[in-house]
Amino acid sequence: MVISGFKTIEYEDGRLSFLDQTLLPNEEKYIEIKNRKDVYEAIKRLAVRGAPAIGVGAAYGMLISVEDYCERENPALTEPLSGKQLNRLSDYIDDTADYLISSRPTAVNLEWAVKRVREICINIIEASDGDLSAKDIIDSIKVTAERIMREDRESCMLMGEYGLSLLKPGFGILTHCNAGALATTGYGTALAPIHMGQERGYGFHVFVDETRPLLQGARLTAWELVKSGVDVTLICDNMASIVMKSGKIDAIVVGCDRLAANGDGANKIGTSGVAMLAKEYGIPFYMFVPTSTIDMGCASGDDIVIEERRGDEIGELWYEKTMAPEGVKTYNPAFDVTDHRYITAVVTEKGIVYPPFDKNLAELMGGENIPK
Amino acid sequence: MVISGFKTIEYEDGRLSFLDQTLLPNEEKYIEIKNRKDVYEAIKRLAVRGAPAIGVGAAYGMLISVEDYCERENPALTEPLSGKQLNRLSDYIDDTADYLISSRPTAVNLEWAVKRVREICINIIEASDGDLSAKDIIDSIKVTAERIMREDRESCMLMGEYGLSLLKPGFGILTHCNAGALATTGYGTALAPIHMGQERGYGFHVFVDETRPLLQGARLTAWELVKSGVDVTLICDNMASIVMKSGKIDAIVVGCDRLAANGDGANKIGTSGVAMLAKEYGIPFYMFVPTSTIDMGCASGDDIVIEERRGDEIGELWYEKTMAPEGVKTYNPAFDVTDHRYITAVVTEKGIVYPPFDKNLAELMGGENIPK
Repeated sequence: MVISGFKTIEYEDGRLSFLDQTLLPNEEKYIEIKNRKDVYEAIKRLAVRGAPAIGVGAAYGMLISVEDYCERENPALTEPLSGKQLNRLSDYIDDTADYLISSRPTAVNLEWAVKRVREICINIIEASDGDLSAKDIIDSIKVTAERIMREDRESCMLMGEYGLSLLKPGFGILTHCNAGALATTGYGTALAPIHMGQERGYGFHVFVDETRPLLQGARLTAWELVKSGVDVTLICDNMASIVMKSGKIDAIVVGCDRLAANGDGANKIGTSGVAMLAKEYGIPFYMFVPTSTIDMGCASGDDIVIEERRGDEIGELWYEKTMAPEGVKTYNPAFDVTDHRYITAVVTEKGIVYPPFDKNLAELMGGENIPK
Repeated sequence: MVISGFKTIEYEDGRLSFLDQTLLPNEEKYIEIKNRKDVYEAIKRLAVRGAPAIGVGAAYGMLISVEDYCERENPALTEPLSGKQLNRLSDYIDDTADYLISSRPTAVNLEWAVKRVREICINIIEASDGDLSAKDIIDSIKVTAERIMREDRESCMLMGEYGLSLLKPGFGILTHCNAGALATTGYGTALAPIHMGQERGYGFHVFVDETRPLLQGARLTAWELVKSGVDVTLICDNMASIVMKSGKIDAIVVGCDRLAANGDGANKIGTSGVAMLAKEYGIPFYMFVPTSTIDMGCASGDDIVIEERRGDEIGELWYEKTMAPEGVKTYNPAFDVTDHRYITAVVTEKGIVYPPFDKNLAELMGGENIPK
C-alpha cells in the first residue's frame, strides 16, 4: 500500500529500505539497511519510528541481519548446516534479537515482532533433522516478516473503519505526534480514519500538535496529511488548550506505544496532558491501539518503563545556536502514560473498547497474553 | 536594582537602552532606543517584553520620543513654546501614544503607562499660561517614567514577599514563560519569590517550560535563574503533565498580561493548560499580577483580545530549514485565558487575593478602574 507516494518500509529483491523520517519534511530520502547495526541505529535515531512500523522494521531487520550473517559466514545457503553452524547461527539470532530489542525500550511492538521471528527460528531449528539450510531459516523469517507487515496494513484499514464510525463529516480533529502512515506500513493507526475519510470526502479539519522536542507532529503528521490533501493546521503543543476551548475540536485521536491491561496507555510525551484537557473540555479522546500494542502482561501504567532521552534534544535543533543557557539541567522523557480514566475509547483492529477497560480489554484479548 | 548583573531597561544621561531579549541566552546585548519607531519596533519584536517591563519601556519610550521630536523641531528647549508649537507637540504626543499602544494589543500595562504619561502632559499643557517650555514637558514625562519604574521595582519586592509566604524551603516549583526580572525592572513578578528565596537559602527546585513558539522559558527564565544560581530544569511544554504527576511540583507560579475583574487571566499561550493540569493533580496555581495589570474595565476573559502572531514563528527558528511542510496552515495565538476557577490565588503587590475573585478583586482595587 502506498499512501500518497511514499513507503515507510520496503523490502524488495532482498533489499531493505526505510524512509529516513529524520529528514522530513524537507527531504524524502530512503536509506538502505544492510545489517543489524543499520537496523539498530535506524530505530534508535528514529529514522523509522511509530510502534507498528518499528515492529515491521525490526522483523525485516531480523531477516536482513540473518541474511547478512549467512552471506559472511556460510555462502552455501542451500546446503544443510552442520550442528556447529546451526548452534552459531542460533546464537546469532538470539543475540540479534536482544540487540534490536535494546534499541528502544518502550515500544512493545519491537519486542513482540522480534520475539515472534525468534520463535519461528527456534521452532524450525528444534524440528530439524540435520537437513536444515540457512535458506530454510531465512525463508521462514521472510514469511513471518511479510505476515507481520500484511497484518499491520490490514489492522490499519480496520482501525480506520472503526475510527470513522466515531467521527462525522466536517469534524474538527486534534492529534498529537504521528500515529500515521509513517508510523505503520499502511494508513496509520490514529490517522487511518483521517486518510480514509479524506478519500471519502469527509472534509475533516485537522489540528496537529507540533510535538516537541522532535517535532513528529510538524515534520511527519502535517507532512503526510498535506500530502493526502487534508485541511491541516499546525499548532504548538501548548496551543491545544485554546483550540479546544474555541470549540473547533470535536474529537481527539492519538496512537499508543504500549497499552496496559487496565487501559492506561503510554504514548508520545504530552499525550496525557492533551487527554486531561480533553476531559475538562468535554471532548472525546480516542486512543488507537493495534492489539499487538496491548500488553496484558502489564497490569497498569505504573509498570511501563518510560524511556528518557538525551536532554540536549531540548536545547538543540534551533537555528544557529543552542536555545538553552549554559549550565541548565534538562529532563527529557520520550513518553508519558495517559491514565485510563481520561480515555473515552480504545480503537483496535478487532473493535472499539469502552470502559471498564480492565474487563473489556481482557475480553477482547481472550486468553492472549494474560498477566501472570 | 540589578539582578545578577543585567538591566532590562536603563535610562541614563538621556540615553535609553533595552537589553535585547531576542538574542538571549547566547548574547547579552543592549540596544539604544533613539525615537518612537525604535520603541515600537523593540516592543513589537519582543526585544523588551513582559507586561511590567513593556509598561516601563513605553513610559521611557514616550520620553525619548518627545525628546527626539523636540530636538528636531525646537532646539531651544528652555524657551516658552508658542501656541502653535504647543498644539503641534500635543498632537505629536497623542499620535505617539496611539502608535506605541498599537505595538502589542494584549498587554494592559502598555496602554496604562502610555496613558499615564499622556495625562501628565495634558494636565500641564492645560494648566500652562503661555510659559511652558519643551523642557518642562520633558521633565514631567521623565518624573512620571521614573515613578513608573520605581513602582515596578517596589511592586516586585512586595510580590516576592507575598509569594514567599506561600512557598516553603525545598519546594519544587514549575513556571511557564518568563515573569521574571527580564519581564520587569526589578525581581520579576512570579519569579520574584524565587530570586528572593534563593538569596535566603530556600533551595527551590524550579522546572521551566520552554514555552513555544518563542522559547521565553528556555531563553529567558532558565537564563536568569541560572544566573541567580537557582537549581533549574528545563522541560518542553508538553512535559509539564508528567513532571506534575511525578510529585516533583509543589506549586506553580506564572505571570499575567491582563487580569479581568472576575479573575480570568490572560497570559502566555499554554498557561491555561498548565493551570488545568495543576487543578487535576491537586497542585496550587498562583498567578502573579501587579495591580497595574488588573483591568477592572474588563468583566471577564471573554473580553480580552488575544493577539495572533505570524504563523511562520511555528515553523521557523529551527536549524537549517523550516520544520513545517510546505502548504500547511498555522495558528499562532500569543496568549490564552486561564479561567479563574483554575487559579488558586492571585498575588499582587497589595496582597494575596483568593476566590471569590470578583468580590475580592473589587475590594482590593477599591474604586479604581471599576467596570462601567
